[in-house]
Amino acid sequence: MNKDVVISSRIRFARNLTEYPFLSKLDPTSASEIIEKVKNVFPNYSSINFDKLNLLEMKSYVEKHLVSPEFISIKMPKCLILNYDLSIMVCEEDHIRLQCIKSGLSLDEAFAEACEADDMICGKLKIAFDEQRGFLTHCPTNIGTGMRASVMMFLPAMTMNKDISKIAPQLSKFGLTIRGLYGEGTEADGCLYQISNQITLGSNEEETINKLNDIINQIITKERSARDIIKGDKILDIIMRSYGILNYAHIINSKEFLKLYSDIRLGIALEYIKDFTFEEIDSLMINVMPATLTLHSGKQLNENERDIYRTEYIKNFLNKTD
Amino acid sequence: MNKDVVISSRIRFARNLTEYPFLSKLDPTSASEIIEKVKNVFPNYSSINFDKLNLLEMKSYVEKHLVSPEFISIKMPKCLILNYDLSIMVCEEDHIRLQCIKSGLSLDEAFAEACEADDMICGKLKIAFDEQRGFLTHCPTNIGTGMRASVMMFLPAMTMNKDISKIAPQLSKFGLTIRGLYGEGTEADGCLYQISNQITLGSNEEETINKLNDIINQIITKERSARDIIKGDKILDIIMRSYGILNYAHIINSKEFLKLYSDIRLGIALEYIKDFTFEEIDSLMINVMPATLTLHSGKQLNENERDIYRTEYIKNFLNKTD
Repeated sequence: MNKDVVISSRIRFARNLTEYPFLSKLDPTSASEIIEKVKNVFPNYSSINFDKLNLLEMKSYVEKHLVSPEFISIKMPKCLILNYDLSIMVCEEDHIRLQCIKSGLSLDEAFAEACEADDMICGKLKIAFDEQRGFLTHCPTNIGTGMRASVMMFLPAMTMNKDISKIAPQLSKFGLTIRGLYGEGTEADGCLYQISNQITLGSNEEETINKLNDIINQIITKERSARDIIKGDKILDIIMRSYGILNYAHIINSKEFLKLYSDIRLGIALEYIKDFTFEEIDSLMINVMPATLTLHSGKQLNENERDIYRTEYIKNFLNKTD
Repeated sequence: MNKDVVISSRIRFARNLTEYPFLSKLDPTSASEIIEKVKNVFPNYSSINFDKLNLLEMKSYVEKHLVSPEFISIKMPKCLILNYDLSIMVCEEDHIRLQCIKSGLSLDEAFAEACEADDMICGKLKIAFDEQRGFLTHCPTNIGTGMRASVMMFLPAMTMNKDISKIAPQLSKFGLTIRGLYGEGTEADGCLYQISNQITLGSNEEETINKLNDIINQIITKERSARDIIKGDKILDIIMRSYGILNYAHIINSKEFLKLYSDIRLGIALEYIKDFTFEEIDSLMINVMPATLTLHSGKQLNENERDIYRTEYIKNFLNKTD
């Protein structure tokens, strides 16, 4: 699963219904109809009516990577359908955005599961498909497979030795791209990088996934070698100081948390920290994000109160894993 | 005792024997004779032959404030006589430098004890004394009482709010001066400041001590008010982060330790940290100084090894006080 270097793997399909125009020309009544049709394909899955959520609740779904940041700004009836690792945004940029996220390097498993749901959609609904061009999508960059395969990688050693800057040009040769934690244009906080295919036309799904798997495995090897080189007193000191701050600080904002998270996750990888697993620190990372954390508190919190509440939440987590 | 603001109080007397020239004209044979004479005044006190010590051992006595930095560089037979809070340097700048150090604000107690030892010296040895000018000393700045009364103060809040810079000009009006941790020309690391009289002529010992006590009490009040003002989330965060680093870091140099020490000592004063006392953290501070720490290790340590050994020493201390 390579969890020391790979946080998660994601397969996403973009699909549109033939009977309705794309989002830019869609009217709210049609949007509601689409939502009903997709819900009927998955009668046993839970569905969340996004129109009834407040901003904080919507942002928390973004932090959990269950919806895109764009989804919450779309002014149209919209719905999220959920079932374990599977989530379906209805009325995002495309009528249907279906994704499966799995932890670690699990592109094949995520693909298999996403295909199963996609087969149900394509079987029960009339999906826009062209023999020549494949699936038709709102944005031309998705036409063809309509698939985005992406892997969230944790690359602290390659960030430290600056090798990370050499990756982007190499990736683009293979039709791949690298981005920060929350998609396009976001920073690589926490040494987290999302690597995904850019090309959806002229290459089938399996080829795309195989190529991505190949490249990811090469990066994993590079990151591990870089970690072997930095291992020693100096990095141990950096890691343990961050661990000390995590245990003792009274105010930690989310930007600083991502820095501490990164140091501690590296500490687990280098076996300096044995108090918890990658999964535990990864789920802590999501849970202390601003919106998710504020929701958990059950209160209105200003920034300072939230940063203090974050440290209480962290201390509870650290005590539980003792 | 005011230990939240005052680390220690010290009374020092400078004395010289009439039969011998001052240090600059002294020959080694005479120096040895002086050492024997002073030792004979205190036959039950332990005496340390400084000629037999290595540099590390000598530096450790400096770190413990039992000898001056100047003492170890004097090329002459020299000796340290010790008994609890009392220490006597023989053949420093003056033939005899007698001091008594007590923890907290205890100038009167230190003065009483130093006088007792001084009476024995003046009773048994011929001490250079002039009816008009008082005790004669090597440096004219000590002529008169030959007494230096000093108080080591811990002033973190006045350092933060910069009021500390206003103190020096005020003190000089009263014939007092302020310096860093290890005397003249040293930095005020750890927010530690030594305040002492500059004048030894035209004022008797009691007047000098009363004046110093008065001023110290005024500064204590100011420092405590400043602490009340800074108390809150922000300072709690700073203190607890330093406590976290002290508990977790792998490499801590002595300069950084003084910063952490200062934060933690303030944390004890503000009752944020209740795991140990002022005395415990003060003695830790001395024990992790470079020379004292290296001696304790029983090994030759390079700088990096010493900084790592310091963290081990600190962790042992923290575990003991748990």
